[in-house]
Amino acid sequence: MSVPTPSHVDPDFIAVFSNSLKLLKEVCQSPSGQAFIVAGTGTLAMDMAAANLIETGDKALVVSTGYFGLRFAEILKRYGAEVDVLEANVGDIVAMEDIEQQLKSKSYKLLAFTHVDTSTAVLNDAKSIGALAKKYNVLSILDGVCSVAGEEFKQEEWGIDVVVTASQKAVGVPPGLALLVASQKAIQAFEERKSPVANYYSDWANWLPIMKAYESRHASYFGTPPVNLIMALEKSLQLIVKEGLDNRFERHQRAGKAMRAAIKALGLELLSKNDDVASNTLTAPYYPNKIYAATFLQAISEDGIVLAGGLLPALKSKYFRIGHMGSVNRADLLATVGAIETVLRNNGYKHELGAGTAQILKHF
Amino acid sequence: MSVPTPSHVDPDFIAVFSNSLKLLKEVCQSPSGQAFIVAGTGTLAMDMAAANLIETGDKALVVSTGYFGLRFAEILKRYGAEVDVLEANVGDIVAMEDIEQQLKSKSYKLLAFTHVDTSTAVLNDAKSIGALAKKYNVLSILDGVCSVAGEEFKQEEWGIDVVVTASQKAVGVPPGLALLVASQKAIQAFEERKSPVANYYSDWANWLPIMKAYESRHASYFGTPPVNLIMALEKSLQLIVKEGLDNRFERHQRAGKAMRAAIKALGLELLSKNDDVASNTLTAPYYPNKIYAATFLQAISEDGIVLAGGLLPALKSKYFRIGHMGSVNRADLLATVGAIETVLRNNGYKHELGAGTAQILKHF
Amino acid sequence: MSVPTPSHVDPDFIAVFSNSLKLLKEVCQSPSGQAFIVAGTGTLAMDMAAANLIETGDKALVVSTGYFGLRFAEILKRYGAEVDVLEANVGDIVAMEDIEQQLKSKSYKLLAFTHVDTSTAVLNDAKSIGALAKKYNVLSILDGVCSVAGEEFKQEEWGIDVVVTASQKAVGVPPGLALLVASQKAIQAFEERKSPVANYYSDWANWLPIMKAYESRHASYFGTPPVNLIMALEKSLQLIVKEGLDNRFERHQRAGKAMRAAIKALGLELLSKNDDVASNTLTAPYYPNKIYAATFLQAISEDGIVLAGGLLPALKSKYFRIGHMGSVNRADLLATVGAIETVLRNNGYKHELGAGTAQILKHF
Amino acid sequence: MSVPTPSHVDPDFIAVFSNSLKLLKEVCQSPSGQAFIVAGTGTLAMDMAAANLIETGDKALVVSTGYFGLRFAEILKRYGAEVDVLEANVGDIVAMEDIEQQLKSKSYKLLAFTHVDTSTAVLNDAKSIGALAKKYNVLSILDGVCSVAGEEFKQEEWGIDVVVTASQKAVGVPPGLALLVASQKAIQAFEERKSPVANYYSDWANWLPIMKAYESRHASYFGTPPVNLIMALEKSLQLIVKEGLDNRFERHQRAGKAMRAAIKALGLELLSKNDDVASNTLTAPYYPNKIYAATFLQAISEDGIVLAGGLLPALKSKYFRIGHMGSVNRADLLATVGAIETVLRNNGYKHELGAGTAQILKHF
Repeated sequence: MSVPTPSHVDPDFIAVFSNSLKLLKEVCQSPSGQAFIVAGTGTLAMDMAAANLIETGDKALVVSTGYFGLRFAEILKRYGAEVDVLEANVGDIVAMEDIEQQLKSKSYKLLAFTHVDTSTAVLNDAKSIGALAKKYNVLSILDGVCSVAGEEFKQEEWGIDVVVTASQKAVGVPPGLALLVASQKAIQAFEERKSPVANYYSDWANWLPIMKAYESRHASYFGTPPVNLIMALEKSLQLIVKEGLDNRFERHQRAGKAMRAAIKALGLELLSKNDDVASNTLTAPYYPNKIYAATFLQAISEDGIVLAGGLLPALKSKYFRIGHMGSVNRADLLATVGAIETVLRNNGYKHELGAGTAQILKHF
Repeated sequence: MSVPTPSHVDPDFIAVFSNSLKLLKEVCQSPSGQAFIVAGTGTLAMDMAAANLIETGDKALVVSTGYFGLRFAEILKRYGAEVDVLEANVGDIVAMEDIEQQLKSKSYKLLAFTHVDTSTAVLNDAKSIGALAKKYNVLSILDGVCSVAGEEFKQEEWGIDVVVTASQKAVGVPPGLALLVASQKAIQAFEERKSPVANYYSDWANWLPIMKAYESRHASYFGTPPVNLIMALEKSLQLIVKEGLDNRFERHQRAGKAMRAAIKALGLELLSKNDDVASNTLTAPYYPNKIYAATFLQAISEDGIVLAGGLLPALKSKYFRIGHMGSVNRADLLATVGAIETVLRNNGYKHELGAGTAQILKHF
Repeated sequence: MSVPTPSHVDPDFIAVFSNSLKLLKEVCQSPSGQAFIVAGTGTLAMDMAAANLIETGDKALVVSTGYFGLRFAEILKRYGAEVDVLEANVGDIVAMEDIEQQLKSKSYKLLAFTHVDTSTAVLNDAKSIGALAKKYNVLSILDGVCSVAGEEFKQEEWGIDVVVTASQKAVGVPPGLALLVASQKAIQAFEERKSPVANYYSDWANWLPIMKAYESRHASYFGTPPVNLIMALEKSLQLIVKEGLDNRFERHQRAGKAMRAAIKALGLELLSKNDDVASNTLTAPYYPNKIYAATFLQAISEDGIVLAGGLLPALKSKYFRIGHMGSVNRADLLATVGAIETVLRNNGYKHELGAGTAQILKHF
Repeated sequence: MSVPTPSHVDPDFIAVFSNSLKLLKEVCQSPSGQAFIVAGTGTLAMDMAAANLIETGDKALVVSTGYFGLRFAEILKRYGAEVDVLEANVGDIVAMEDIEQQLKSKSYKLLAFTHVDTSTAVLNDAKSIGALAKKYNVLSILDGVCSVAGEEFKQEEWGIDVVVTASQKAVGVPPGLALLVASQKAIQAFEERKSPVANYYSDWANWLPIMKAYESRHASYFGTPPVNLIMALEKSLQLIVKEGLDNRFERHQRAGKAMRAAIKALGLELLSKNDDVASNTLTAPYYPNKIYAATFLQAISEDGIVLAGGLLPALKSKYFRIGHMGSVNRADLLATVGAIETVLRNNGYKHELGAGTAQILKHF
């Protein structure tokens, strides 16, 4: 029967939601954190972090490695923050010395950065940034949309106050969930606000009692939880924990290394400056000469492989992006590299056919 | 392959999204409206209406028939509105004269009300309220979470500027989508704002280009759309349109009448004062003497039927709520009434067993 | 990859098949029996019993209560049996005295009978027939297509040598599986045959090693097992065992009693002579005057309820059949009786509307 | 509701069954043939061909290229045939001259052969054998379990009287369906039998009226059809026809060529003597020295790839089998060859890593 109270009060679902909250903290390695699972997107998770922690006039630093760093700056400004942005060169990260110098220069309330920026496939040094934030007593917010459950990440040990992510990337669930884990320090900062949160839907005051109730196995209502997605989330998080976080990180590292080796063997260059700053969840190669974005992506797509075009406005048609996260295995890598090799050749590019797939076999 | 750009760029999905937007307008009978389909809940849809239309100091009137009317007042205040609330007696609506008098008394920017308040099963006279709002040149916002695709509703003809709803009620899709259709007048009011929208995620400036792009069959990105839910939405909206809106409204009216007759035949009383203000999508009966909420709901739930407890704080344990919306048919009504009869009898209530189910057969 | 050896060698599937074989014996209460699960229908299971146990010239007795008793006689003849048939009056069973007298009169190799004949909804006294067969040292074969997992049945205690059934009735799995459990005495009779089995596909010599291998958790090949159906079978048998066989039998008895009471309350008569011989898995009422089979069944089907027409050639259009087995619950019974009441009334039949559903509530 | 007549009478299912029968004939290119779709396995389909066409004393010729040729001989004998077997050398076919000489030597009623024998990956010359059978007026039966919908096949043009197959190979449906298309000449031979069919379940007399009824869109009952599998069959056959039979055959030919090239590039040898007799739906390589079946297959399976061991008793541990049929594409081939390369190397075999995958890219 279609029902006014949906099955979010069903004892089985309550258990699922409780487990999901606990597993999310486990995957983020944040035993004393507070997890939030809310209907929305990764952008809502970013919005929630900003709206709850910023009051008008607060100083915020964004360390940007691409498109999503700049988006974070925009969101923080929306809630009244005075935002400074340290922007890395394309394909590189900002040097730790530069970040430290900036933190010394002003009294920031928070520092936000992207762990892996989807637009550049650059991997930030989250551990060192976390340590710096701690040293200067600044709240640190990590955008982990493209890294959580793929790249090594230890929220509590690394001193990251808030991690925001989404369901549809390395977590491996359909899109529709904003995920967030906040440290007790972040929750305390929220509770010490002097002004109300400007955003009603994102306001932790609405969500905290709900999350606490479900985590301790009681139903509670603010908005109807997306039951089906949360059920999928529990299953996916269980698989992640079952694989073992270290195994999972290591598998992504091998996948990243294999893909970069394959791309280089085809004679293509990467956006990421070197292996130290290269993401293991996705890879961003430049097109070779005379291979054009539209033709290439169309042909790849007809081949049944999903790749993405460039995202940085200035370089949009100069590079493409290859995801290799979640359940990625050798077969996925071979399929992708095989498709790339085939489409390059069909469009007149000369290379030794099989050079890329051979690298996959050598590394994975 | 797990992918950095999800399949929201897939041509098949683009067509699905486009259809869903058009079908949503068709179901709301709002041919010139602007539809929004966003990852979130019904509360996000309310939030979105308020955040985009209210600027600090705007005057707003809420006509409340229960819990969700008061919530709307709270949301409007969050965005700086000066809110007046006309609150109906429990089980009744506010008289149109009282609304009109209030509208005369001040210059309101908008008027918000709940079509069917889930907390009371009271049905508002949306057509008359729409006409009043039009007469006094006030933007009208209808919370249709518990009515759209169940109760008769003609957005454009009735002059409703914004309808907000969610996926999981009469629309018949799992929870996780905030749905909204705005009139061109509402969009214009948004565009004429003098201050920025306080809420980043809800800001129509972010979503309008996305919705327009998808509606005209182009992919666009602000946040990853909840692909699976939108695919379910398209299917559900197609079924609704196929049934015929008038047929669907008439089916809900029969279901409502049958359920009220069955409940009365068991000797129970309803919250709704009379048939004119009784919702056809859900019914709220008072418990009879010596039947206790916890025992009753537990037994009903063990029977496999989902009913909901009371939601009005003052009457929480005095009444319960029965949903009958979406694909509701005679079998659903019989199962529900049969379970209610059985549990009442098992808990010592005396009535002629079968009196309720007989009413269902007489009306449906 | 599409594969020459399908996944019937997958360790997970081997475990599923093993469990299914053991659970099937548990449901038939035949701890020392030999289970067979084969791609086919209930008729294949009957065929298998006959083909493996009959040699040309063997004497067989069929105790028939309807269509499927006569089919069994036909199958036995096909393999060379000299078949005698004791045929009950429509709606009745054959008296135990008559069966005993017949068994005394000749030296039969086997006796076959239908537990519940789908064509008449008559329930045979399987326990007494099993005892008689034992007394006269005759192999007993029970056609349990319409009874296993619904009607009380204790294969070993009751001395039934072979039970044949199918997946799609009370077992609750889609059609496509022939199921059979044979006693060791039946297997021995097979092994002592003097002539080869006339039927290649049904020959136990082909299937016995396969079933033994899978039961002891080794893959083996004769024909590719219907993997998906066997996976569904395991789940269904687990649910049956979890419910408890006695609980399940009692639930079906209540359902049968409730349905018969409801049908009688509408003024309709049953094929089954009295409650002692009435099946609890389905009910067969005669149409009242001026209600015609085609019109009635068409209207019921448009109502979304599946009922079946008559099956006995002579009475085909005089009666219909209502299944109530497997996961049947109060809601199913109400839906079915509610549809019958509605369609009867819509076709001019006069009765007190709700009289049938009231009986369901009184009994279930 | 669990029901005595299952939904095989549902108008939607009747249409599905009707389409499936027509599509099966279309895929076999047998416009005037009679299709049979029956719950069972490929072996049941062979059994059905033999049981219905053989009477005691009939002469039958089996042209065998492996395990399944010999099984056909065994089945034919079961129904009383005097069977001669022409057995090919392992990896080769029987020369057409030898078949013709044999056909000249005796008056055979039928000739049976395997199109692709799963045990050897050898492809027979079905067109030439069909022509010979026609020339000598012998009924021809083709075992197409491992070829139909993969290898080129034109039943009517090539004069094949009966093709038998199963659902789970190149047809791409889960196991559980025996499929058969008979020419009118075969049906006539059945109708002119002088003795009854020894096998009840396989008897076309039982199935012909059912298949004719469903094909002309009427329900009919002999055994409950495996509804779910037939629904999957319709979808799969529609996809096959949509791809185009010639495109599909060509795709399998490219896959076969690519796989054989890859295997040879790794230094492995094939059972099939040469390309003319090599199947395009599966490939059977010998293991290289010091690579052992159990170790190899276990490691491959842990890698998530399903390969099969040898099936010919004498060579069981000397070779393995790789399926590449149905929806096989470049990604599948790369995954399989990549796994084979990896496992070979991990077990001490020396070869240029990537040599196999490079061949796939060169051919597919």
